[in-house]
Amino acid sequence: MRLKCVDCGSRCSLEPFQVRCGCGGLLEVEQELAMVDAELLKRRFQERLSERMGVYASGVWRYKELIFPELPDEYIVTKYEGNTGMYAPEPIRETLGIRGLYFKAQSENPSGSFKDNGMTVAVSHGRSLGYSAFACTSTGNTSSSLAMYAAMGRSQAYVFVPNRKVSANKVLQTQAYGARVLSFDGTYDDGIRFLEKRGEELGLYVCNSVNPLRIEGQKSIIYEIAQTLGWSLPDWIIIPGGALSNVSALGKGLADLKSLGFIPSVPRIALIQAEGASPFHRMMASGSPVLTPAPRPDTLASALNIGNPPSWKKARSVMEMSSGVTCSVTDAEILAAKAQIDRSGIGCEPASAATLAGLQKLVAEKTITKDETAVCILTGNLLKDTDVLRGSFQDIPVDLSGSDWEALLR
Amino acid sequence: MRLKCVDCGSRCSLEPFQVRCGCGGLLEVEQELAMVDAELLKRRFQERLSERMGVYASGVWRYKELIFPELPDEYIVTKYEGNTGMYAPEPIRETLGIRGLYFKAQSENPSGSFKDNGMTVAVSHGRSLGYSAFACTSTGNTSSSLAMYAAMGRSQAYVFVPNRKVSANKVLQTQAYGARVLSFDGTYDDGIRFLEKRGEELGLYVCNSVNPLRIEGQKSIIYEIAQTLGWSLPDWIIIPGGALSNVSALGKGLADLKSLGFIPSVPRIALIQAEGASPFHRMMASGSPVLTPAPRPDTLASALNIGNPPSWKKARSVMEMSSGVTCSVTDAEILAAKAQIDRSGIGCEPASAATLAGLQKLVAEKTITKDETAVCILTGNLLKDTDVLRGSFQDIPVDLSGSDWEALLR
Repeated sequence: MRLKCVDCGSRCSLEPFQVRCGCGGLLEVEQELAMVDAELLKRRFQERLSERMGVYASGVWRYKELIFPELPDEYIVTKYEGNTGMYAPEPIRETLGIRGLYFKAQSENPSGSFKDNGMTVAVSHGRSLGYSAFACTSTGNTSSSLAMYAAMGRSQAYVFVPNRKVSANKVLQTQAYGARVLSFDGTYDDGIRFLEKRGEELGLYVCNSVNPLRIEGQKSIIYEIAQTLGWSLPDWIIIPGGALSNVSALGKGLADLKSLGFIPSVPRIALIQAEGASPFHRMMASGSPVLTPAPRPDTLASALNIGNPPSWKKARSVMEMSSGVTCSVTDAEILAAKAQIDRSGIGCEPASAATLAGLQKLVAEKTITKDETAVCILTGNLLKDTDVLRGSFQDIPVDLSGSDWEALLR
Repeated sequence: MRLKCVDCGSRCSLEPFQVRCGCGGLLEVEQELAMVDAELLKRRFQERLSERMGVYASGVWRYKELIFPELPDEYIVTKYEGNTGMYAPEPIRETLGIRGLYFKAQSENPSGSFKDNGMTVAVSHGRSLGYSAFACTSTGNTSSSLAMYAAMGRSQAYVFVPNRKVSANKVLQTQAYGARVLSFDGTYDDGIRFLEKRGEELGLYVCNSVNPLRIEGQKSIIYEIAQTLGWSLPDWIIIPGGALSNVSALGKGLADLKSLGFIPSVPRIALIQAEGASPFHRMMASGSPVLTPAPRPDTLASALNIGNPPSWKKARSVMEMSSGVTCSVTDAEILAAKAQIDRSGIGCEPASAATLAGLQKLVAEKTITKDETAVCILTGNLLKDTDVLRGSFQDIPVDLSGSDWEALLR
């Protein structure tokens, strides 16, 4: 394993660790997949499904040979992340009218979001290099995930949180795990810039989404979907887009599976952004060669409220590789889709519901046809952001000794 | 399968369904374990560990032969409940000084609490009888679990919630899943009485903890711990006690495993109550033959805030069968234990932390000795009750362009 710059193409080793190339470009891990015996691996991955304790019980480390083969097990901190549910809610599929629909509930991860898939790898890597202080900038889910793994590894987490537009629950969860929350006046993007510039000199292992090891861990989401479906995939993978690390990671996972011969072809990706924070969609729709940041991103889907997504170049490559499409959806569309997902019994936070809102739009405009199949990636748990639900419902006051029950229960 | 009254001993079938015996006693399911081929079952349970979709991927329905063998699969609503993590946090074990310590994180269930293990069985049973309306009284976790399964089954849930001392998050979660929340002035116990008296005539399938099918589902918690440990168990099972359904269920699971020969002997149970709501502990400690309800239960561990636990007779039998002990812990002790569990990276809601607080007490008074091993059952997710965390932590305001980082990160 080594790192390759997505901008200048130069290569470097993982040690000493740097989050970005000297040229400023993002780094990605290069795996040596040519050495891999695909059939042997498939058998191993299958056998490990019955593990319940130890490293290989994890839905990420199950695929260790494709993620971080060199890492000694002793450094791994795991909470058996991944292993999340795949659901096929018939009422939602019927309404959409497409042939097949799955929801992959990464929201069921131990800290309540898909961030765990990548964070277990980043924190384990940092531990192997001797770091005892970990840091990230976060709108919420990243910070609680980092805080959890740092706690499991008996290390200190520092999270830089913008002092507005974050969910109170996520911050409380982060602090409960023992992380120190450093609150600053600025945006998510300011925090990223600070840590990329100063993190290393301050002795911090930086766990922002640009960390290439996080991308390696997040790849496992696509491995798990494929394995659950007998090493096949739906026609479309629907992904919400904020920092764009998820689409980068899932795209890398797809490329791995294709080059290993696990899947015959790469499905198409649909990336959905919130209208108030959709610089990537606007770049793709306008055919512009570079991303113009949104200076004041504004969506109630706090996990998507990112104006300058650092992984946009990786994401663009993935869109090309997968004949991908992008679209944007309004906050109202997101909330309506969230209500459908919640009422199906699955549940999710607003950002996740962008997937269904986008899917509805793409089906309506016939980009996705009725004879196709899709899987929506749900990224965060319903309980992560209950603030958004406040005021949506009314308790019905009753008197146990004398209500008109027939009318109430009708 | 049939039902037997724990008071008068009379037997009845599961259809038509009644929550209590005509004599007023609680009912329990009688399984025909004599017919079971234990070795065959063990092999099946092992094979099913690698399932990821379908009924047997569930950590409850994996053990269907011991839980509800007659139920046709088509009625089952499952979210792959169970399948929760077993953790062995070394720092906590070291501090306690005992030989072995596990936490079984039922908090990782899809709705965030152990209630899912039982609720999947109750709602599936109700569906098989043709019910489309489900009801419960709840301090929070039961209601969100019921709401989730009712939604999965396209049925309507009605939850009766006391209008004080409940967690806002849990109520919002319940409503998000589409349940109607009926709020009443009274206690949890008033709500139970109402549903037991009126539920059937109102056409409601009653899912309170007295429902004997819920107990059958909850048994699986002990099956899963035993299977994960190679069909062996620690010396002690530490369980928090509110309505006492959990100790009833886990005790029944232990008795099953013993009579099937899966385990050589039954481990001891320690049941921990919150001091402000500890009628069962006080009964056991005083040697009284009957339970005196606590008229005004008062603990911040809202899931334990129950003054008149309906399952106390079942729980007493379990304590006898397992040479069990009880103890009570203060809210301050619960919060201190919660902080330890949270900072270990596992996390839980306050009620769950009563286990560790109780274990600490029992080790200190040498009821549990240092050469013994224990598993604590964590019942609810950290995110279920973040209100209790408010005010516990302080954000550290920083200025990205000019803070004294050396001091801040020390």
